[in-house]
Amino acid sequence: MYPIITISREFGSGGHSIGEAVAKELNIPLYDSIIVDKVAAESGFSKDVVFEDGEYSSPSQAWYSSRTAYLANFPSPQDRIFDAQCEVILNLAEKGPCVIVGRCADYVLSKAGIPALNVFIHADMEYRKTRIIEHYGETNVPVEKRLRKKDKGRKAYYRYYTDREWGDSANYHLNLDSGFLGEMVCVDIITSVARRMDVK
Amino acid sequence: MYPIITISREFGSGGHSIGEAVAKELNIPLYDSIIVDKVAAESGFSKDVVFEDGEYSSPSQAWYSSRTAYLANFPSPQDRIFDAQCEVILNLAEKGPCVIVGRCADYVLSKAGIPALNVFIHADMEYRKTRIIEHYGETNVPVEKRLRKKDKGRKAYYRYYTDREWGDSANYHLNLDSGFLGEMVCVDIITSVARRMDVK
Repeated sequence: MYPIITISREFGSGGHSIGEAVAKELNIPLYDSIIVDKVAAESGFSKDVVFEDGEYSSPSQAWYSSRTAYLANFPSPQDRIFDAQCEVILNLAEKGPCVIVGRCADYVLSKAGIPALNVFIHADMEYRKTRIIEHYGETNVPVEKRLRKKDKGRKAYYRYYTDREWGDSANYHLNLDSGFLGEMVCVDIITSVARRMDVK
Repeated sequence: MYPIITISREFGSGGHSIGEAVAKELNIPLYDSIIVDKVAAESGFSKDVVFEDGEYSSPSQAWYSSRTAYLANFPSPQDRIFDAQCEVILNLAEKGPCVIVGRCADYVLSKAGIPALNVFIHADMEYRKTRIIEHYGETNVPVEKRLRKKDKGRKAYYRYYTDREWGDSANYHLNLDSGFLGEMVCVDIITSVARRMDVK
């Protein structure tokens, strides 16, 4: 049986497309926006809020939000979304092999003792800038600024909820430079590792 | 033509064996102790000193050594070894495709504008402890302490001479967890990427 595969990714690195291709190739489900939908349905927050607050925070946002909530003796909105997200991820993981993109899934599963193949996709700034412009077009915010802001938000979120460093090799089994290797090679590496694993 | 492949590795992760197997599989030379021999011959330092001072430093050693030398207006022994090592690495790289293990080769080549496939091999502490005891046996220093000291020395050396973080995904094209994946899978990933690259 294939393993559960988690894919964390720098913004613009193509990690999401790679996840899609891996899921298609292995014929297993991909969980991305469905997590947002389910968390929104279960928590009562809007999809937009879950989308943002379930993966991004400004470096101080999570701390302030939680601190204020702690002083008022109730969980912060971001903490409630995180808890709902953990539950949704664990429920989806129970169904069997799948690809889960983002949302600290590597941490959520490992903390619950559920084995997974954890992948981190990254690429240099030039590759990601070109890709973002191709996919999302230009805005009035310079593309590099958009990229750095997104990465910073994911990094801060991950650090706050996991006490780990986002992108640190120690937390992943495969860290792949999609800009250097190309998306197709990344897909081949991940699928070939998954095919060689025999998870009971 | 295959690319030049650099392999950086945590102590005990099997990175050296993986490098050997990759070189054998691709039928290209492996440069490891030959670098030490050549640097020793060219710099006049003993092989033991080159082996240690060309890859390890205590967090403050490189700084103090260089600072003292700077004040006395001559390069420190460690700086002289580093310079000789860079030259040896660049000369070897000129000969064509090869595998170079350790010695900041990823940085040395990229600084000289020479393309390479840069790999970092890591594994968790338990895997590395078992492997070190199997390969080198027990000593009166606990194995975990030996491991941490070696890693710390390599990290400090790398940071001092490259201004980069050792093991940080951004510096490598492939970071592989050999404990999770197994040495054979790591070898297969690296060789298959090398075979798909066509370096002019």
